[in-house]
Amino acid sequence: MPPHQNLPKVLLHVPHEFASHLHHHFSHKFHFLNLSSLPLHQFFFACTHENDHHHDLSSITALICYGGHPVTADALPLLPSLRFIFTASAGTDHIDLSECRRRGVTVAGAGNLLSEDVADLAVGLLIDVVRKISVLDSYGRRRIQPPQSDFSLGSKLGGKKVGIVGLGKIGLEVAHRLEAFGCTILYYSRNIKPFVSYPFHSSVVDLATNSDVLVLCCELNDQTRNIVNREVMFALGKGGVIVNVGRGSLIDEKELLQCLMKGEIGGAGLDVFENEPHVPREFFALDNVVLSPHAGANTSESYMGIFQLAELNLEAFFSNEPLITPVIL
Amino acid sequence: MPPHQNLPKVLLHVPHEFASHLHHHFSHKFHFLNLSSLPLHQFFFACTHENDHHHDLSSITALICYGGHPVTADALPLLPSLRFIFTASAGTDHIDLSECRRRGVTVAGAGNLLSEDVADLAVGLLIDVVRKISVLDSYGRRRIQPPQSDFSLGSKLGGKKVGIVGLGKIGLEVAHRLEAFGCTILYYSRNIKPFVSYPFHSSVVDLATNSDVLVLCCELNDQTRNIVNREVMFALGKGGVIVNVGRGSLIDEKELLQCLMKGEIGGAGLDVFENEPHVPREFFALDNVVLSPHAGANTSESYMGIFQLAELNLEAFFSNEPLITPVIL
Repeated sequence: MPPHQNLPKVLLHVPHEFASHLHHHFSHKFHFLNLSSLPLHQFFFACTHENDHHHDLSSITALICYGGHPVTADALPLLPSLRFIFTASAGTDHIDLSECRRRGVTVAGAGNLLSEDVADLAVGLLIDVVRKISVLDSYGRRRIQPPQSDFSLGSKLGGKKVGIVGLGKIGLEVAHRLEAFGCTILYYSRNIKPFVSYPFHSSVVDLATNSDVLVLCCELNDQTRNIVNREVMFALGKGGVIVNVGRGSLIDEKELLQCLMKGEIGGAGLDVFENEPHVPREFFALDNVVLSPHAGANTSESYMGIFQLAELNLEAFFSNEPLITPVIL
Repeated sequence: MPPHQNLPKVLLHVPHEFASHLHHHFSHKFHFLNLSSLPLHQFFFACTHENDHHHDLSSITALICYGGHPVTADALPLLPSLRFIFTASAGTDHIDLSECRRRGVTVAGAGNLLSEDVADLAVGLLIDVVRKISVLDSYGRRRIQPPQSDFSLGSKLGGKKVGIVGLGKIGLEVAHRLEAFGCTILYYSRNIKPFVSYPFHSSVVDLATNSDVLVLCCELNDQTRNIVNREVMFALGKGGVIVNVGRGSLIDEKELLQCLMKGEIGGAGLDVFENEPHVPREFFALDNVVLSPHAGANTSESYMGIFQLAELNLEAFFSNEPLITPVIL
């Protein structure tokens, strides 16, 4: 029997490179089972028809996944012994948490590890849009004159009223950074945050009416899906800018595209899209957007941190200790 | 005699749109003489051969210029009555200040009006380089796969040691913003700044050795020309990033290009170049640079502020009052 057979089995449902790192660093502690990058339920169905003893899914108790593939109520019964999921992401909208609760599956995530990187990207996208960094770089490289002679004229970040949708850890990090640029912060959140002095607005329309910029960093759930709709964009107005580092479906993407194309809002910095990795091709022709490939947490430092968190949470789970960064217990 | 003939004459040596704004807003106060966008001495020679009474340069006492065209020791004798220059720029390296002093010409500039916008762009360029915003936007729009599968992986801004070259108003604004991202600030400057706690380094090589990032925001003069040379770039090292919002000639541009092409430094965000508007075309092929068309102060807010400063300084000059934002008195 190979030595790894004595180690706790962990199913990997992550991109190839991520899996390689885990194998490289932690294969002395865990027996990783590599899965393909197919959506989980497809893979599971495929597996159950294989006669591969490495893929005896019925005994798997731990799974590592990430934001790219859903872990649905349909897929969970295919892992009847599953008791623990670690997701390498800040968001958990790809996991059916109610079904996990019902089945007694605990979940741990990235906690606040990625918040700073995501906030950095949000601020970077905002500066980029208002100061036209990417679009001017692009015109320069293509040796094309911009459409108007005053095209390079942007607008000043200082003094802007920035409405933050979702004042969790990421939202707070964004606020802290933008205060240093002289922005005024206001927010919408499920609940008033008693520990901050930023003005609270009880609806996103009201927030947009009073803001020059909206930064979306709340989680995606039934209450927040399409929370930025046509009405909100009209309330934000023609000079307004939207930055989305949350999830694509926080915005009505079709309406966003229309508003950007017609100049109903001023611009947008988008790290997330409704049907990733698909980006509607109409976005590619727009000068008033910056498009980012869901790269909010894509830094070497965050990746190393995620590997460590995966290890620590797995060790905690297999030792019956409290999880380090629990989402549900 | 047309009514403007009683108004103080002001020669404009600025881009067309800038001149239009001044005409539009202040032609009831000043009699503006529009000049072409030719370099000043060429234009002056052209003018002196014309028989145009509007261009009686010998009686001109005030000039408005900007950073784009030099006002050299050669050009100044062509305006024998000149006593005042307003430059719509933070830098004054395009004006021969010693010759102005010798001829009794006072000079006013943008003062600190543009510092925040320039600092915003510096931070925007830095985030863009370390998080690859523009290059990922560009690959996305061209529907081209980046060269490596982990290409989108950037590096974390927080924790970086940022060496600021020139801790004037712009440098201080950059420092203030980057502290909010969790960066550590150190600096090189002509003199120790007793009012800050950031560590001072007495040479740029020493600063680079101790930094992950260099941000150049000092003025260009004989002491600072090519202050970032090959030795400094090697001291900064392979992961290092340079942001230049000062002047192109602060860097040895040929060496910078070599270092970027060979990976001797990690990346650069460049708003200024040695021979603007010319940008060496080798830069256009590089994924590790962000190129900006000297747009540090290009915001509507700064432009409006500059128009007001021009007006206020002209009024002060023509009333023998102290200048509002003097460079030399």
